[in-house]
Amino acid sequence: MNHLPLALVASAAALLAPLPALAQSDAEIAAARDAALTGDRVAWDIAEGLTTEVGPRMAGTEAEARARAWAKARLDQLGFSNVRIEPYMMKTWVRGVETAEIVSPFPQKMMVAALGNSSSTGPGGITAAIAYFPTFADLVAAPAGSLDGKIAYLSHDMHPTQDGSGYSFAGPVRWVGAGIAASKGAIATVIKSVGTDRHRNPHAGGTTFRDGVEPTPAGALSIPDAENLERMLARGKPVKMHLTLTPKWLGQTESGNVIADLPGSDPAAGMIVIACHLDSWDLGTGAIDDASGCGIITAAAKQVMAAGGTRRTIRLLWAGAEEVGVFGGAAYAEAHGEDKHVLAMESDFGADRVWKVDFNLADGALKDRIAQALAPLGISRGTDRAGGGADVGAIIAAQDLAVIDLAQDGLKYFDLHHTPDDTLDKIDPAQLRQNVAAWTATLMILGNAPGELAPQPAKAE
Amino acid sequence: MNHLPLALVASAAALLAPLPALAQSDAEIAAARDAALTGDRVAWDIAEGLTTEVGPRMAGTEAEARARAWAKARLDQLGFSNVRIEPYMMKTWVRGVETAEIVSPFPQKMMVAALGNSSSTGPGGITAAIAYFPTFADLVAAPAGSLDGKIAYLSHDMHPTQDGSGYSFAGPVRWVGAGIAASKGAIATVIKSVGTDRHRNPHAGGTTFRDGVEPTPAGALSIPDAENLERMLARGKPVKMHLTLTPKWLGQTESGNVIADLPGSDPAAGMIVIACHLDSWDLGTGAIDDASGCGIITAAAKQVMAAGGTRRTIRLLWAGAEEVGVFGGAAYAEAHGEDKHVLAMESDFGADRVWKVDFNLADGALKDRIAQALAPLGISRGTDRAGGGADVGAIIAAQDLAVIDLAQDGLKYFDLHHTPDDTLDKIDPAQLRQNVAAWTATLMILGNAPGELAPQPAKAE
Repeated sequence: MNHLPLALVASAAALLAPLPALAQSDAEIAAARDAALTGDRVAWDIAEGLTTEVGPRMAGTEAEARARAWAKARLDQLGFSNVRIEPYMMKTWVRGVETAEIVSPFPQKMMVAALGNSSSTGPGGITAAIAYFPTFADLVAAPAGSLDGKIAYLSHDMHPTQDGSGYSFAGPVRWVGAGIAASKGAIATVIKSVGTDRHRNPHAGGTTFRDGVEPTPAGALSIPDAENLERMLARGKPVKMHLTLTPKWLGQTESGNVIADLPGSDPAAGMIVIACHLDSWDLGTGAIDDASGCGIITAAAKQVMAAGGTRRTIRLLWAGAEEVGVFGGAAYAEAHGEDKHVLAMESDFGADRVWKVDFNLADGALKDRIAQALAPLGISRGTDRAGGGADVGAIIAAQDLAVIDLAQDGLKYFDLHHTPDDTLDKIDPAQLRQNVAAWTATLMILGNAPGELAPQPAKAE
Repeated sequence: MNHLPLALVASAAALLAPLPALAQSDAEIAAARDAALTGDRVAWDIAEGLTTEVGPRMAGTEAEARARAWAKARLDQLGFSNVRIEPYMMKTWVRGVETAEIVSPFPQKMMVAALGNSSSTGPGGITAAIAYFPTFADLVAAPAGSLDGKIAYLSHDMHPTQDGSGYSFAGPVRWVGAGIAASKGAIATVIKSVGTDRHRNPHAGGTTFRDGVEPTPAGALSIPDAENLERMLARGKPVKMHLTLTPKWLGQTESGNVIADLPGSDPAAGMIVIACHLDSWDLGTGAIDDASGCGIITAAAKQVMAAGGTRRTIRLLWAGAEEVGVFGGAAYAEAHGEDKHVLAMESDFGADRVWKVDFNLADGALKDRIAQALAPLGISRGTDRAGGGADVGAIIAAQDLAVIDLAQDGLKYFDLHHTPDDTLDKIDPAQLRQNVAAWTATLMILGNAPGELAPQPAKAE
């Protein structure tokens, strides 16, 4: 109920103010959308440039700093305003040597990558018997102490899903499995990579040890290696692994966000913040995660700029340090808690096409208009409540913002996510342009929408 | 003309001898073929066992020795006769550390694997400017001395082909490129992997330095890395690479062939030798190259055994050391030059379906009968002259043998060939069984075919 009077006041104010000279008609919005669909090169050039000229951009490293400099130069060149780097400090973890091999009964090497926050085995590695947990529930059910002296091996059966929900299903194995195994006595953990491909490329990603649990070495095996290990285990003999992981903590190092604005004609109308993240895991070149997202939001904002801009300011947030703990998103919310944001969106799910739009937005007519503008792109209207993305999570929570999700097709995303295979060739330029077109239309409509942009009312108390 | 009188004599002898009790009818052959098509597990079990219980089987190493022991036990268990290991010595090369990174202008790591016969950079590696050759012809055209002090980078544009001819097109880059670059002054060579995938997995394989050319370090970049390097080069600034490859020679070590027979009812009728190779490159587990081939030929011979055998002996050759120079095939021809072989076949092109049959066989009616028996498996009759495979090349040449090629579909083969991704999951059990069915029918017909098996007459002199 709090929003309504404010919205009425704002609407009245909008009526009194001169009409925004640049509010585009439906036809103009369709034209900008379709121009992006066929002609946009900005998104591709950003993904191509970041992967070629910078490559992997691990949070807190000098590579991420080079990426920030690259981003600032590119955003300046594209004509955005107030382009700046906003630095913050963070505790930085980096990969070391990583090898795994079965010692007995069937000696052979396996491909492994340390998980973020893994401790080190030391350079000599460790050798221990494998304790096998086919599912996360099996691990949870294991008695305390039952893993003493063992290397836990945690499996799962993840399948591709269009909405990415397979990640929620299998993800706990990576997110918290090593900590649970450690709490039950395991001296290390290896997991089946949380992914859906069949390549010898482990999936990196962070794992969390809760307070009171001493971190152990933790790594992900490639999926073919995990399957091979399971075939060995099925033969019934004890399986021993030698594991060497030597990651280390660099202490506090500098990371940062890169921010740019497309100023609106009405500074009082509040900002639409659109986000991607600039950092990447270190194994690939961060093409789909998330250079493509930075390309998409920036290309769309550039299309809006070319169409004459909007009443509301559109703010680009190329966040730092998403992968390792969303430090950039937290720093943004802290630094900009006084700025007037009205809506948040994020692109951080690869480069495949947008297949549906979800809302957390009060204005039903506005939702209808956006859904209608997206329909020619084959985008259906979803029934989920939009959540935004990691990097805008803190500012959404702090300011109770409206949110729109342009949901991308996730069927192939977890073939590539956090792997060495996250490279430019995985981006389909046509699907990338469809994203830009969808974002362009959505931003043009939102930027000039009358009244206030507010989230759906919370459930009645 | 020389073959005809001998064939007539042999046919006459066959008429005088008691009819082979076990010559199968067309219906019996079709039944055995179709049983293999739907029910065979022998081929899968061999591929599964070798990849799980042994893994990579680099020629001349202890892993290849374990594979020989595994193979002998399995062939004994399946009921073959005279199963034995025939050892020979060879000069053995093994991989060391291998890293590559762009030093300037765009620092980032690349995925590299040393090529067989590569020399070592030493543990500190070397740093030099890249000299780029988009095609093999460009390298050949480079003046002597023009590569002094540089790392040659050799590219190509290989595409998938069903008959595998893309390998002949792009292969010279790997087979001899490093030697040519060295002869023109290059201190090292990196190539775009000879393959057709888009994964961060370099394709291993041998390279040859001709006499008089001092070997240099030589490696293959993964294809996404090669593409990234080419994008860097396209920006026009000099590109410098730091390359570390530390392979070494172990001197003379033991390798060996594993041989097994399905004895025929008529020892004078000569042997049909069918081959695969037991060794593999070391990056993958050698599932499609060539555990599947060993599975196919062995499963088919087992089907023939179950159907009562044939007049001719069928000899299985699981050759050693194919990948690094076909040492097993040469040792076989030397050791068995006095044995009476009449026809040779090999399975060494993965596990995908047989799509055509080619012959080098004089007997037209026999070719027709085989083609007819294969037609229900969707196998067409090709127009190429069959050549056999690497491991039977020496014995074919030594004894002027008839040959049949059951040509497998190669469209996906070079996605996997010599890469870490050559793992069990890449084998489609249904296509594997189709191979076994094709081999079963072919061997049953050949094993009992009347007369002599002779190659097509050479062209008139």
